[in-house]
Amino acid sequence: MRGISRRHIVAGAAVATAGTVFAPRAVSPAMAAAPAAGKQAPGYYRYKVGSIEVTVVTDGVNRFKFADDHVTNKSRSEVNAALAAAYLEQDFMTTPYNPVVVNTGAKLVVIDTGTSEANFERSKGAGGQFQANLKAAGIDRNAVDTVVISHFHGDHINGLLAPDNKLAFPNAEILVPAGEWKYFMDDGEMSRAPAGRMQEVFKNLRRVFDALGRKVTPYEAGKEVAPGITAVATPGHTPGHMSHIVASGSDKVYVQADVTHVPWLFARHPDWHAFYDQDGTLAEQTRRKVYDMLAADRMLVQGFHYAFPGLAYVEKTATGYREIPVPWSPVI
Amino acid sequence: MRGISRRHIVAGAAVATAGTVFAPRAVSPAMAAAPAAGKQAPGYYRYKVGSIEVTVVTDGVNRFKFADDHVTNKSRSEVNAALAAAYLEQDFMTTPYNPVVVNTGAKLVVIDTGTSEANFERSKGAGGQFQANLKAAGIDRNAVDTVVISHFHGDHINGLLAPDNKLAFPNAEILVPAGEWKYFMDDGEMSRAPAGRMQEVFKNLRRVFDALGRKVTPYEAGKEVAPGITAVATPGHTPGHMSHIVASGSDKVYVQADVTHVPWLFARHPDWHAFYDQDGTLAEQTRRKVYDMLAADRMLVQGFHYAFPGLAYVEKTATGYREIPVPWSPVI
Repeated sequence: MRGISRRHIVAGAAVATAGTVFAPRAVSPAMAAAPAAGKQAPGYYRYKVGSIEVTVVTDGVNRFKFADDHVTNKSRSEVNAALAAAYLEQDFMTTPYNPVVVNTGAKLVVIDTGTSEANFERSKGAGGQFQANLKAAGIDRNAVDTVVISHFHGDHINGLLAPDNKLAFPNAEILVPAGEWKYFMDDGEMSRAPAGRMQEVFKNLRRVFDALGRKVTPYEAGKEVAPGITAVATPGHTPGHMSHIVASGSDKVYVQADVTHVPWLFARHPDWHAFYDQDGTLAEQTRRKVYDMLAADRMLVQGFHYAFPGLAYVEKTATGYREIPVPWSPVI
Repeated sequence: MRGISRRHIVAGAAVATAGTVFAPRAVSPAMAAAPAAGKQAPGYYRYKVGSIEVTVVTDGVNRFKFADDHVTNKSRSEVNAALAAAYLEQDFMTTPYNPVVVNTGAKLVVIDTGTSEANFERSKGAGGQFQANLKAAGIDRNAVDTVVISHFHGDHINGLLAPDNKLAFPNAEILVPAGEWKYFMDDGEMSRAPAGRMQEVFKNLRRVFDALGRKVTPYEAGKEVAPGITAVATPGHTPGHMSHIVASGSDKVYVQADVTHVPWLFARHPDWHAFYDQDGTLAEQTRRKVYDMLAADRMLVQGFHYAFPGLAYVEKTATGYREIPVPWSPVI
């Protein structure tokens, strides 16, 4: 890695001719720089909500070519125009996944679990990072008291399972939305669901929950799932989809799950229906209601599919909403 | 830390009444959560510019009550309105400092040095983090070949000195803008400078450079200060203020230093003159020229006073410019 290169000599010459009127410091002979690190910083971020400590722990991203009907009521070229407006790569979806860990002082709670460690290799390290980043954040998965699931899509539940197919949080109670459990565990609903992706959703969640012996605790909207964490019904994306308000003192944050998917498409354009919004019309109604409230109340939102760390305010625009990321704080 | 609390019992009851139709998992008796971590993630972020590796290493932030004449041509209430529009605390400035480390493959280069470790205690840990975050990023300060200074304000040069008043990067050549050196080291200019802050600026930079035995190498605009890093004259904020374009292959990023200070005030309102813009009119001209170019060319900017990690695109708005942060990538 070390040695004199032609680039070095040229660079040295450039500096030497740069109007040097003072003698350069005596430095060692030109050598290659220290080796590149090649590795991203660990992906976690902490903030307080009153006396509660929140740690956003990213699971990373998946990147895939989007299908023509990815947004069911918009054309590929309209989606590409929105990606260009967000300075993002066209024809591809890069989807971040951001579970959060809430330390209420009484309970250590994980909200949603990411795509699972199995996704790490599949995504060439871009996704499936949740457990590695938890470790980097100094959070012991064995100390997690409660896992709260927002809805039953794979990127929220697959991380419930460790590679050995056992519970990734061995000492945790698993709380699931009662409406999700009722709908998706109903074999009649499964038999009536369309072939293809919807059948896959049913199959995948059975794979996960069967591996856990179906040992879960359903919860209803309006109830505290842990001290300071209240469930809110936000249906449409899935029938029993839940969001969660974390509150302490006068502080609160709205942990939205998939009220919008990536904000650069679906907050900017609340009328756009993604194929993974099971009931597009209801999802849009929920989205507008929640985002109108967030904007009116100047309330913080924590977005599962926002760019890490995903904490933002929301304001109305001509076509929908824009998230204003909260500046990174170097202390909590 | 552990024990049954009333909050626990209440929380348990809430879950138990939440339409539980399945038996909860057998869990250990209610205990307090794991202790709060209380510490932010290390503040560094990596990305590639062609074959060059950039690491943004934050020095943290300082927070202070702003003076009535902080923005010399705007009132306190106008500044507060802009802070409110950015969902930020009124009457206070929270200023991030984001030096970058560029590994060109041939040289390990630091651009600007932050407020120094001495600021850590003064700021109660919020600032003066550069050396600690460098360490977290796995960057050895002894391996730094070159330190490039953009201009001579304390938050850019104070980190040149370690607590022992010796060079914080012992093996580095220190490159300084020739125009800064000529102007600020001129005792006549110092004697003519206004009392108060301007005298402090002159005194502080003499303190720093005298401690280094004035062993620096001045550089001119248009020259490569290291392979792939070209200096650009961006005067106004200070007489010899420089920015730096890092380029490799077809990729480039504009490392702007203080072409704008915090973007929520001075990119949004390029006509606002901060008291630390030494020549407000020239600073505004430079700002508009650079930002028009960034917007027209859809060119990445790396902002010293942007929120960490400070990598963004820029677009024009009705009153000025808005930065669009690049989504955090979990891999580089």
